[in-house]
Amino acid sequence: MAKPTPLSGFPELLPEQRFVEQQVIDTLRTVFELHGFAGIETRAVEPMDQLLRKGDTSKEVYVLRRLQETDTAADSGLGLHFDLTVPFARFVLENAGKLEFPFRRYQVQKAWRGERPQDGRYREFTQADIDIVGKDELPFHHDIEVTRVMVDALSRLTDPAVLGLPPFRLQVNNRKLIQGFYAGLGAPDPAEVMRLVDKLDKLPAETVRGMLLEEAGLSPEQADRCLELATIRSTDDSFVDRVRALGVEDPLLEEGLTELAALLRGCASLTGDQVTIEADLSIARGLDYYTGTVFETRLEGSESLGSICSGGRYDALASDGRTTYPGVGISLGVSRVLVPLLNRGALVADRKVPSVVLVALTGEDTREESDAIATALRANGVPCEVAATAQKFGKQIRYAERRGIPYVWFTGDDGHQVKDIRTGEQVAADPATWTPPAADHRPRVVVATGSTTPPAKEQKQ
Amino acid sequence: MAKPTPLSGFPELLPEQRFVEQQVIDTLRTVFELHGFAGIETRAVEPMDQLLRKGDTSKEVYVLRRLQETDTAADSGLGLHFDLTVPFARFVLENAGKLEFPFRRYQVQKAWRGERPQDGRYREFTQADIDIVGKDELPFHHDIEVTRVMVDALSRLTDPAVLGLPPFRLQVNNRKLIQGFYAGLGAPDPAEVMRLVDKLDKLPAETVRGMLLEEAGLSPEQADRCLELATIRSTDDSFVDRVRALGVEDPLLEEGLTELAALLRGCASLTGDQVTIEADLSIARGLDYYTGTVFETRLEGSESLGSICSGGRYDALASDGRTTYPGVGISLGVSRVLVPLLNRGALVADRKVPSVVLVALTGEDTREESDAIATALRANGVPCEVAATAQKFGKQIRYAERRGIPYVWFTGDDGHQVKDIRTGEQVAADPATWTPPAADHRPRVVVATGSTTPPAKEQKQ
Repeated sequence: MAKPTPLSGFPELLPEQRFVEQQVIDTLRTVFELHGFAGIETRAVEPMDQLLRKGDTSKEVYVLRRLQETDTAADSGLGLHFDLTVPFARFVLENAGKLEFPFRRYQVQKAWRGERPQDGRYREFTQADIDIVGKDELPFHHDIEVTRVMVDALSRLTDPAVLGLPPFRLQVNNRKLIQGFYAGLGAPDPAEVMRLVDKLDKLPAETVRGMLLEEAGLSPEQADRCLELATIRSTDDSFVDRVRALGVEDPLLEEGLTELAALLRGCASLTGDQVTIEADLSIARGLDYYTGTVFETRLEGSESLGSICSGGRYDALASDGRTTYPGVGISLGVSRVLVPLLNRGALVADRKVPSVVLVALTGEDTREESDAIATALRANGVPCEVAATAQKFGKQIRYAERRGIPYVWFTGDDGHQVKDIRTGEQVAADPATWTPPAADHRPRVVVATGSTTPPAKEQKQ
Repeated sequence: MAKPTPLSGFPELLPEQRFVEQQVIDTLRTVFELHGFAGIETRAVEPMDQLLRKGDTSKEVYVLRRLQETDTAADSGLGLHFDLTVPFARFVLENAGKLEFPFRRYQVQKAWRGERPQDGRYREFTQADIDIVGKDELPFHHDIEVTRVMVDALSRLTDPAVLGLPPFRLQVNNRKLIQGFYAGLGAPDPAEVMRLVDKLDKLPAETVRGMLLEEAGLSPEQADRCLELATIRSTDDSFVDRVRALGVEDPLLEEGLTELAALLRGCASLTGDQVTIEADLSIARGLDYYTGTVFETRLEGSESLGSICSGGRYDALASDGRTTYPGVGISLGVSRVLVPLLNRGALVADRKVPSVVLVALTGEDTREESDAIATALRANGVPCEVAATAQKFGKQIRYAERRGIPYVWFTGDDGHQVKDIRTGEQVAADPATWTPPAADHRPRVVVATGSTTPPAKEQKQ
């Protein structure tokens, strides 16, 4: 077989990169569980009518066909899920009788989209979602809760002692606030105004202004106020006064202001240098079906990736006609954040293997003794491996070095000795009791200085 | 939307079941890493020519097509992987220059096969694979190593303190042994004999005997000896003498006997009541491309599931024409073992949520105080949640009970109190320092007594 080449859009990681991803996923899981979120997985496939039920056929769904199906035009009626929200909504409806509400769940899984691959956008990618779902009702304090959970998670990811990811900036807005503002202003179609204002991150304000006049039927003065609203940003609740200063009054606007201010206050104690939250009144999440709080998140130094963690409040995640299940959730694009950083070498583990110790081998006839030492170390939770061949000790040390294994274990006339091959220090040790310093126990994530800022053109994966 | 119904062959788990699966996967990962195996994941898709390159078109591969592809007959040329070996072989070739050999990897991922669903066989299922791959050569001691790793893993899965799965029986044979035996016996086509003897688990011995005469061209005496070889079983190396007593001589047979005896001796110290190993000379692994050691595994009480953990030695996992990569590996069918046990309620977690503590709420106006208590508990690694609404305390206790949360935290005039709602015991506690007993820290897997034996007809999932 000729050497295979990578498939564009389907990133794969080497062991020393996968370790970083695994560490991120473990950290997320720990935080989500500390907050009482239960982990679930849904199947990779959904019926096509489920995947397309929002009428949004622009999604690049992968449709499945069984190879043995003799009619080659016959699809199985199944497609790979393109996010974790559609399957979760279906899961909630299907199992509603067996779940306890409010139902807090996290889900870390792959999703697939057949779209054109580009930096941060892949055909196969890992998402980490948290959602809280209620039955018929879900009080607003859960919006604050879900935000606090994600801020807690992102804080640990940026903690240099844990992973050292670049800082995150969470941008929050509230649909009630902006829709109420547009309504109070007298806009004939507030939803259309929201759709157009959402284009501000791609188009110049002047162009959007023109569209507000032509497509949304606003007067020049109304359009200017909408654009003014979209410039308001604050990391505390001072945005409230700035909105009020625009002189628009509307009950829905009031509700949105109250909610957004409560959310910022509720998260204030958790933010810091590495994770900031700001009210950003330009955020609208376009076509998505949010009804209150909306989130986007930028990764510092990687703003070109767009939002890497988005979500919000939806009043009907799912409904079976009789019961409605409102929810609030956030989805973190694990691949979108990590793969570009891994590809450019900004993050990597300091070992290619989990082993802390290489147990040296003096000869094939004593392999059993070396195995026994390894077994003793493992009984204390120390990952280790026995040398593959009884080469000269110098070569066995090189073997450890190439894999990043920090310690080599020797047994000879002097009894047991363990050598830290980074320092050369060698000490007597007992395999029944020896453990490495905590910092050596697992591979460490190394952050390459300066490399979290992307080069002019990102390296292709 | 009407209530969705499950898709046959695509099992999904409730939170209290998923916890059990997660615990199994965590345990496997811990053991694999203790033995120095690095975790990797491969993409879900492979080019169709890779998936079918063994010429085995009987595999029920799911082929992918992009929905937006205007030519509806045009496949993407990609299919979902049906195991983890084909993608791993491709991964090794693709990344050979960046990997260190011998390369030990574990991989826990889903695979897909469009075959007819039945108990223990699903269209989507999770596999846990370990393999050791060498460059050009891979000494036999790695066969022993990989077996020891899986025995270690299975032992922890059956440990009542960890998970309490039913006992496993690992059956080992060696292709060199049986092929050498058939050759030494003068069989015209030893491979054909092996293929037919492999049918012994499905057909009566008399039928197989007839096939050996007619299809493999054996004499009645040769056929009887082949069948006699297949009856030999032993949990120590006593099988060697019994094979020798059949009076066949062949250098390949000798090599096989030596290897298989070494493997049994090498694993003897690890086996116990819950995990047994036996040489079973009827095991051949049919059409698979093994060249030495072969494994199968039965789960006690669920023999009808067939082998739930199989593998062996292959002298060419992959080859690029110049370099060959021999390997030895085992694959555990996580879904095949767990889903039937979960479906019949034999295993379940004692909580539906990770929370150890429900922090009670006296009113919405003091939610911030309750949140602060929860934050303090989480800082000590205690998973917890704050009550969703300020109901009467009796109702909040019921809320905890329904989810299996063992402790409720009250704050009142007496200060902080934590109540074990299983015993009713209530004590004063400090949120900054309180932690639950270790046994309560995570949900526990509960084994329903008597229920690991399947009913006459297994429940459909």
